[in-house]
Amino acid sequence: MRRFSTQKIVLFALLGTILVIILLMGLQDRPQREITPITELIVTEQPPAVEEDAPAEEAAAVVETTDAEAVPAEALEEEVAPEEEAATEEATAQTAEPVAEAAQSRTALFFAVLPATPPIPTDNPQTPEKVELGKMLFFEPRLSQSSVIACSTCHNLGLGGTDRIPTSLGHDFQTGGRNAPTVLNAAFFNQQFWDGRAESLEEQAQGPIQAGVEMAMPPDLAVERLKSIKGYLPYFEAAFPDEEDPITFDNIVKAIAAFERTLITPNDPLDRYLLGDEDALSPLAKKGMETFEAVNCVACHNGPMLSSGFLMRFRHGEDSGRMTITGDPADEFLFRVPTLRNLPLTAPYFHDGSAGTIEEAINIMANVQLNKELTDEEVQAISAFLNSLIGQQPEVTIPILPAN
Amino acid sequence: MRRFSTQKIVLFALLGTILVIILLMGLQDRPQREITPITELIVTEQPPAVEEDAPAEEAAAVVETTDAEAVPAEALEEEVAPEEEAATEEATAQTAEPVAEAAQSRTALFFAVLPATPPIPTDNPQTPEKVELGKMLFFEPRLSQSSVIACSTCHNLGLGGTDRIPTSLGHDFQTGGRNAPTVLNAAFFNQQFWDGRAESLEEQAQGPIQAGVEMAMPPDLAVERLKSIKGYLPYFEAAFPDEEDPITFDNIVKAIAAFERTLITPNDPLDRYLLGDEDALSPLAKKGMETFEAVNCVACHNGPMLSSGFLMRFRHGEDSGRMTITGDPADEFLFRVPTLRNLPLTAPYFHDGSAGTIEEAINIMANVQLNKELTDEEVQAISAFLNSLIGQQPEVTIPILPAN
Repeated sequence: MRRFSTQKIVLFALLGTILVIILLMGLQDRPQREITPITELIVTEQPPAVEEDAPAEEAAAVVETTDAEAVPAEALEEEVAPEEEAATEEATAQTAEPVAEAAQSRTALFFAVLPATPPIPTDNPQTPEKVELGKMLFFEPRLSQSSVIACSTCHNLGLGGTDRIPTSLGHDFQTGGRNAPTVLNAAFFNQQFWDGRAESLEEQAQGPIQAGVEMAMPPDLAVERLKSIKGYLPYFEAAFPDEEDPITFDNIVKAIAAFERTLITPNDPLDRYLLGDEDALSPLAKKGMETFEAVNCVACHNGPMLSSGFLMRFRHGEDSGRMTITGDPADEFLFRVPTLRNLPLTAPYFHDGSAGTIEEAINIMANVQLNKELTDEEVQAISAFLNSLIGQQPEVTIPILPAN
Repeated sequence: MRRFSTQKIVLFALLGTILVIILLMGLQDRPQREITPITELIVTEQPPAVEEDAPAEEAAAVVETTDAEAVPAEALEEEVAPEEEAATEEATAQTAEPVAEAAQSRTALFFAVLPATPPIPTDNPQTPEKVELGKMLFFEPRLSQSSVIACSTCHNLGLGGTDRIPTSLGHDFQTGGRNAPTVLNAAFFNQQFWDGRAESLEEQAQGPIQAGVEMAMPPDLAVERLKSIKGYLPYFEAAFPDEEDPITFDNIVKAIAAFERTLITPNDPLDRYLLGDEDALSPLAKKGMETFEAVNCVACHNGPMLSSGFLMRFRHGEDSGRMTITGDPADEFLFRVPTLRNLPLTAPYFHDGSAGTIEEAINIMANVQLNKELTDEEVQAISAFLNSLIGQQPEVTIPILPAN
């Protein structure tokens, strides 16, 4: 600094002032340009009547036509009920107004922009401390009996939140026989697992930790092990203040769920299209979107997740779906409709991972669910549409875990 | 902005100017305080004579006293040779000047600041593109036969570059019977694996990918699989320009090694102490450092890595060390001296992971290698010193891997 004259310092200071003013103005403008549209146009998990109700009825009809053993109306309503309850119970900061701009064209009516944030349950509010702890636990292999399997093993954030193999390998290289559903945007579902047996991410997280073919860790042992790693206590205390003994299994899954609620993938080409960018989808993808609607894939694949979130009958393979849990023949082959967001990243497809490519999956779904044979042209167009559904992946830095 | 008068704007502008000046001054000062010393005082893998030669002779002496079957001098020299050759062969940007400031006290003479960058082999220069590809491959489970095991599975960057279990679990949950050495700072070693059977990170990376109990992937299949994932080609082309068919097993391990050369952990309390911060080590840790030298742990644990990088005889357990590779009885129980950097993060210890704590490891080493019984006080002090060796962990964002 000593080399500069007072004159020069004043000159630099003035330049600095101008820079600061420009920066301040820039900062003031930016949120209005980039963030406001998304939050304004946000759709909650309780979608406008025109989008969700109609497909639900159609979906029932589809099941009837393709399934000799029709689903009783009560069974379907039973599945729907928790979703509606949750929607009213859960506190969300978003409005449920219909998306005016989303009605780009008549063909985009069945979809909606993925909200920036998912519903947050009132009994597990998000805090930065809880999300930080949850991220550590999501990557913590010591939560498994073998100490080598973490949530992130099968829900690999470098691989679209899945493991990209037909059915996951867990403890002792055993498999549970089902394909790992993506953790990305899972926070928007009100039923978790392929058979919808968990109603929240908290309830879901309890499953794989304990399952003998996954992490094989009894809850007591999980708590005991985390307590033995002294470095974890301050993180639990920060995430669950005012609790005397914060390292509990309940808090472990609460923290993991809080982190999972940050794994949202906004801004895919469909969302950009819905927000007004006509060129975000290629002409072929737009044609595919029209076909997707015309042949009635939207009966089940609709809304912001391109999934109604309901359980639907899918007679494919040996797995009897929800019936394996309830024992009720009415639940046979009921599976939760998977999201199509990030589909190109989450192959192979279906509950058993039996479809290796999007094209194969389209053909099987058309045959089994819609009783239709699609032309190659139609399949290619739908495939182009579904291949557009890769959102912005969460940028996750590997957490440094406490040593002991 | 409209609510403020011109007078206030001028006032804020002036305050902004002052802030900018303060910030600029701060920015100018900081590198001189924090960064310059490290680069100026850098020590290459060819340490000053006073540090490396003496311990080497002493180490041989130690081996003689504790080992009935003495190591032939030639054998020791054979082990040393590649290190010296590599040091002269490899291009490094650093000077080999002795660290003047490192001679804080007579007790710090055996250690050196960890260099900011490791030696880079001339046949595998670092490029951002190669490092990026290498990071993807380091996290790529599809490089294993099962598609669920990656380099990062056993070299978990959230767990000090290890898996924190005694011996690693690989394909089919099998174990090779050895503890995973940390990948952190491994780039400073000229011999890799516990038995030193690889002379470079490139050669090392070939091992676990192929080993039946680790990733169990034949090189041809690894190449074939990466070629089948179309999204990889542009990354290989960028990392290995001018190559017609860049997806080769050789290039896979070159890229992984390039990424591993970025996994350096600078600025631990010992380094800060060596650079002049007397308070970086606690009084107990300083006492431990003195004891560490006085009882001659520094015979093998010296230099920037707190490891000579040589193979030394360690008769502990059933594993016969380098002899398992060479079949030569002269190589029985020869193991590479492990680095002590980040030691608290890399438990359990030894080639078989048989020591669960640093204190246990200190006692065993004193007994077996130095033929000494340490007092509890001495063990506690050395432990305090070794517990200070946690460096700044690399901040690694999970790479998004190509889908197909």
